[in-house]
Amino acid sequence: MFFQIIDILGTIAFAISGVLVALDKKMDPFGVLIIAFVTAVGGGTLRDVLIGQTPVSWMTNMTYVYVIFAATVFAVVFRNKINYLRKSLFLFDTIGIGLYTVVGIEKGLVAELHPIICIALGTMTACFGGVIRDILCNEIPVIFRKEIYATACILGGLTYFGLRELPILNNWVFVIAGAVVIIVRLIVVRFKISLPSLYKE
Amino acid sequence: MFFQIIDILGTIAFAISGVLVALDKKMDPFGVLIIAFVTAVGGGTLRDVLIGQTPVSWMTNMTYVYVIFAATVFAVVFRNKINYLRKSLFLFDTIGIGLYTVVGIEKGLVAELHPIICIALGTMTACFGGVIRDILCNEIPVIFRKEIYATACILGGLTYFGLRELPILNNWVFVIAGAVVIIVRLIVVRFKISLPSLYKE
Amino acid sequence: MFFQIIDILGTIAFAISGVLVALDKKMDPFGVLIIAFVTAVGGGTLRDVLIGQTPVSWMTNMTYVYVIFAATVFAVVFRNKINYLRKSLFLFDTIGIGLYTVVGIEKGLVAELHPIICIALGTMTACFGGVIRDILCNEIPVIFRKEIYATACILGGLTYFGLRELPILNNWVFVIAGAVVIIVRLIVVRFKISLPSLYKE
Repeated sequence: MFFQIIDILGTIAFAISGVLVALDKKMDPFGVLIIAFVTAVGGGTLRDVLIGQTPVSWMTNMTYVYVIFAATVFAVVFRNKINYLRKSLFLFDTIGIGLYTVVGIEKGLVAELHPIICIALGTMTACFGGVIRDILCNEIPVIFRKEIYATACILGGLTYFGLRELPILNNWVFVIAGAVVIIVRLIVVRFKISLPSLYKE
Repeated sequence: MFFQIIDILGTIAFAISGVLVALDKKMDPFGVLIIAFVTAVGGGTLRDVLIGQTPVSWMTNMTYVYVIFAATVFAVVFRNKINYLRKSLFLFDTIGIGLYTVVGIEKGLVAELHPIICIALGTMTACFGGVIRDILCNEIPVIFRKEIYATACILGGLTYFGLRELPILNNWVFVIAGAVVIIVRLIVVRFKISLPSLYKE
Repeated sequence: MFFQIIDILGTIAFAISGVLVALDKKMDPFGVLIIAFVTAVGGGTLRDVLIGQTPVSWMTNMTYVYVIFAATVFAVVFRNKINYLRKSLFLFDTIGIGLYTVVGIEKGLVAELHPIICIALGTMTACFGGVIRDILCNEIPVIFRKEIYATACILGGLTYFGLRELPILNNWVFVIAGAVVIIVRLIVVRFKISLPSLYKE
């Protein structure tokens, strides 16, 4: 129940971020809806396709469809006022990333994959909706240029597998690893930390 | 037999639309062939991958491969004269979209998915070949900016599930729903109807 | 063992080519790693997804992950000196393409697909990592504009199925077809042969 609420909040934040990019590109209503959808479920869809868990998860759970549709209509109607929600959206988004990372990791474990692959799947779940959104909008994915999410996801993933070695309940491993993703991202954004640049200024 | 002919006409129209875009981008012969192929089978391929029906359908039916290859050669050779065929091509294209929408819906039903997901699969089958074509050609997909197909597909899908509630033979449901897609699209193009704009002029 | 070394050399060459394109686009370290990864394993991943062999192959063989990671770090650190390696890299790349083409063909045979589809799968394995790399970097795939690889792969594929008709050991079919890909590519690049242009100069 608790995780389901987080999941829905994350889905809303992701969908709205898609709507804002699509509006910026002057897309029509159909395009806006598709971009919202892809941003929200794209990462999990790619993960499911790569590990062969099909039909992909949003096809068998109508909650996502309804939530994304409602969030899209909301964001389109109130787009001029959405700036006031920027802080809440950022928080939802960050919490969503934490949850998705751990969910992705656990799907990898169920498929009996190597921990490094599981961390890659977790990062993919959290980050690749945005990558597909940017490709559909004809942009170089923002995450490849100004990394914000991925390092947090990877650190959370390492935490997950570190904790699994300890005598801790699985639920706690889940919560703590997700919390690491969230806290790292909050710190990174708060203090404007970025990966070391590969280029001379 | 009847549906097979429609399927082939639709495939031809889709492939030729791919060739024209690729020639516009000054692609080489290999690129032109790939874009023709992707435009014709991309939507169905994405659908098959997402619902886990693999190998994807064009891999197990050589008809598509031969038809697309022939259509590509034809379109390249006669590209300066293809303008005379524009009306026929538009008609084939529209009929193809009608057929693909219903085929996609029925694949969703076989996989026991929710009606809304089935309609999404139908729309995807009809429209996403063009989306992948545009991404490969480094354009924002035209369908996200000036929507032409998708609304027709969605209306046809709603018709399909409306009719299924009535005591009508399945074959008729198939034909009528496909016809709705075709008629809506013809009307939309004839009267230059578009979705309400989200932007002030 | 012999093939494994070729596979690793090919993976290194592909990953480094990804790094160079990503650095050119001023990506951050995470982006560079992802592009290297996608370039190296993208073709095989697409093939596996389309024929339904999941989890896709790099997820169940950690060698690729380690090799790509090491090649990426190497290429980033020594990027100013990588020009000296250009000839070796081109050779590794070409040998890799030969191997991947035949590996892709044989995966198609295992899935009992038509020879033409098998050749398409082989070409895809060898070439589509570069296609996905270019899409993520917001470029029209170079292979669609100035064809270098694909014809070599297709000729190698035709050789493969020609030889299978003869009383030759399977291993020899594998090696000769791969060698045809390599030799054709070397000749094509050496004598600057390109596909006939579809456009008037």
